[in-house]
Amino acid sequence: MARKASLSGFPEFLPEERLVENHVLDTLRTTFELHGFSPIETRSVETVEQLLRKGEIDKEVYGISRLLDEDAAHNSTKKDKEKLALHFDLTVPFARYVVENAGYLNFPFMRYQMQKVWRGERPQDGRFREFTQADVDVVGDGTLPFRYDVELALVVVDALSQLNIGDFKLRVNNRKLSEGFYRGIGLDDTAGVLRSIDKLEKIGAEAVAQLLKDELGASDEQAQAALSLAQISAEDTSFVKQVRALGVEHELLEEGLAELEQVVGEATKRAPGRVIADLSIARGLDYYTGTVYETVLVGHEKLGSICSGGRYESLASNGKRTFPGVGLSIGVTRLVSRIIAERMAEPTRKVPSAVLIALTHEDMWSEAQDVAVALRSRGIACEVSAQATKFGKQIKYAEKRGIPFVWFTYETEDGGLTHEVKDIRSGEQLPVNPAQWMPSVEDLTVRVVATENS
Amino acid sequence: MARKASLSGFPEFLPEERLVENHVLDTLRTTFELHGFSPIETRSVETVEQLLRKGEIDKEVYGISRLLDEDAAHNSTKKDKEKLALHFDLTVPFARYVVENAGYLNFPFMRYQMQKVWRGERPQDGRFREFTQADVDVVGDGTLPFRYDVELALVVVDALSQLNIGDFKLRVNNRKLSEGFYRGIGLDDTAGVLRSIDKLEKIGAEAVAQLLKDELGASDEQAQAALSLAQISAEDTSFVKQVRALGVEHELLEEGLAELEQVVGEATKRAPGRVIADLSIARGLDYYTGTVYETVLVGHEKLGSICSGGRYESLASNGKRTFPGVGLSIGVTRLVSRIIAERMAEPTRKVPSAVLIALTHEDMWSEAQDVAVALRSRGIACEVSAQATKFGKQIKYAEKRGIPFVWFTYETEDGGLTHEVKDIRSGEQLPVNPAQWMPSVEDLTVRVVATENS
Repeated sequence: MARKASLSGFPEFLPEERLVENHVLDTLRTTFELHGFSPIETRSVETVEQLLRKGEIDKEVYGISRLLDEDAAHNSTKKDKEKLALHFDLTVPFARYVVENAGYLNFPFMRYQMQKVWRGERPQDGRFREFTQADVDVVGDGTLPFRYDVELALVVVDALSQLNIGDFKLRVNNRKLSEGFYRGIGLDDTAGVLRSIDKLEKIGAEAVAQLLKDELGASDEQAQAALSLAQISAEDTSFVKQVRALGVEHELLEEGLAELEQVVGEATKRAPGRVIADLSIARGLDYYTGTVYETVLVGHEKLGSICSGGRYESLASNGKRTFPGVGLSIGVTRLVSRIIAERMAEPTRKVPSAVLIALTHEDMWSEAQDVAVALRSRGIACEVSAQATKFGKQIKYAEKRGIPFVWFTYETEDGGLTHEVKDIRSGEQLPVNPAQWMPSVEDLTVRVVATENS
Repeated sequence: MARKASLSGFPEFLPEERLVENHVLDTLRTTFELHGFSPIETRSVETVEQLLRKGEIDKEVYGISRLLDEDAAHNSTKKDKEKLALHFDLTVPFARYVVENAGYLNFPFMRYQMQKVWRGERPQDGRFREFTQADVDVVGDGTLPFRYDVELALVVVDALSQLNIGDFKLRVNNRKLSEGFYRGIGLDDTAGVLRSIDKLEKIGAEAVAQLLKDELGASDEQAQAALSLAQISAEDTSFVKQVRALGVEHELLEEGLAELEQVVGEATKRAPGRVIADLSIARGLDYYTGTVYETVLVGHEKLGSICSGGRYESLASNGKRTFPGVGLSIGVTRLVSRIIAERMAEPTRKVPSAVLIALTHEDMWSEAQDVAVALRSRGIACEVSAQATKFGKQIKYAEKRGIPFVWFTYETEDGGLTHEVKDIRSGEQLPVNPAQWMPSVEDLTVRVVATENS
């Protein structure tokens, strides 16, 4: 990643960097499965009609068409129903998947999904045209208990805590709370207020107040009240008192307050300091109806949110049935490229092999393969030299890749075999038995470990 | 997969089917890493120029273009250099990756790569428009010892043997052998002969002989000789004698014979019955220069090859340096969809969870979460009921998903807690300690196991 991508916005990792990415993906997968979430994948392609249902043209969708078709019939002359495009997130495809397969799924359906998505945006730091998201959602049939809003916060806090990314804060708000509050102070275009509040971090309080007045006709008092709400944040449930102190009353506000209190209360207990009630979180254009989440990496705030989501009262619907959902999406590529760029975590070696089985003689390749088979049967990754070059050269091969051990097999005078293994870090070389030798747990598999930069 | 894909050629799996696919991918990954191969991924997108370098228009490439650009400037008005398209295999992207990153890689470079590829072909049984391939290759800088041709056959035999797919045959041939033979009998358009021989299985010997005569001007004797060679196959090195018996002499033929003898000799020793010298294997349009591989699933021959590849003397080149390679590509989706359709392997349950922690009272959710945390810390996947519905209903929830255990936590009269776990298969319910209880190894994680159909 220090290297420049040969196609802007389409990052590619070196093998040792891919080990870091795999470590992140494996950790997420393990955590999601420990919490009972099932893996699925959806196709990379949706109909344009499906993708643009919610009017999300800002996502800069990539359409696809067979090159052979292009001259005969331009893709854009096809109806949207038939036109295909690459998905820009995993929520729209998941909603379609749930509706299509509702008869085969058990609800509440808990799934995670880790896949590439594509957006034709202008590439910049932390923004790519092809990147991997890891989504985790629960979806119900008709109803979905609010407790899942709490559960999902705990799942992602658990997942992110296992990565070597240092401190992070999951910031939580609730749309009902904000909308109820805005209605309570007489601002009924709640979507408009949310859009303005969403710009708070970017343009500052004064400019937001101006926006509220200019675009929504808010009075000074209304604008100030909306800003006062947005300025509340707390690492515990003390935010409830602070909101009440603003003296606004509305049924929806009460409902949202109670919900947010549940999420933050339980999260504070289980993961102190990780979850914050932050009443400025708006999640601009997204269609959430209750809880909303955003996550910042402490010290890397400019990277933007690394994990966002919320509750949709109607994630999907087929006309007859409605499927409410709650979930979050982790920006894996954004996270991994930062881990790599800042060397927050590194693999213990560049390759999977723990052992290079040296070739001591051109005729000994088959014997070397026997050793490899014996080691692999005990889970020891190894490779066999293809040529009986000088030992120094073979050791160099291992050194370059960080392979810690080099194995030598010699023929004895009576036609038997003896084996020695050299730890090339210490230089120590000992006689060993291929049926028994084991490296230490630390050396057995390549591991990705935190550095002092994490 | 019994269900029809909602978009023809773009298969999607149910969660329990995805477990089977993950099992296949995990098994391949583990085996490749045990053999020392490093994981990489390349971007999904290449320039059209890169993809069509070898004139592979038959692959029906999908171009991509931002929908926003489409009206303003049609993709096809762009130069090929700038036009982007989805990759149709993992070989072309890998070759580009090697050239671009040569300065950062250690050669010989052993890598595996498991990713989706796209082809706009007409969908049919075993043929998809979006599918996953698992490629494993070694690439050298300038030269690559022949032994890797043997090694790669052993790697995929090892990998495929771990899957629950029943018997398979890796059929191996060598281009030098065939080309040398054709030249030896006076047929110099060796590519033309290979293309005709490639049709042997489809159109039969008589039609191939006619093709050779009509299109290449072969004599009866030449056509018969070429067919005699193609009819040779053997599970050991006896093919060498059979080829010699045809009485053709050519240097390239000898070279190819010696190479094929090495591959089949070593493979027969290590995996008897898995590897066959089959001198009809041509791999039609592909640009192999030595060893060629193809794999059939015994009893599913009509599925086509599930794993193919070979040696490229020049996999990649940047003008100054040439990178020879040898490798194979496994058709993961083809394999997995067959495993699922024929129920050759099935997961032991539909979800990752081993335990459902029932909610015995609406106020006990936090206590239930405590149990979940304790179980997860020992690697036991579990989920917590979101509502304290009747026990029968909660047990039903577990039953539907195949979750074997339901956990109950009760408050005792002195304010403490007691725990019981029910094995819902046997009905047995026992008092347990959340800090100690472990399910059997068989029940701990969901496993994918062979059925009698495999």
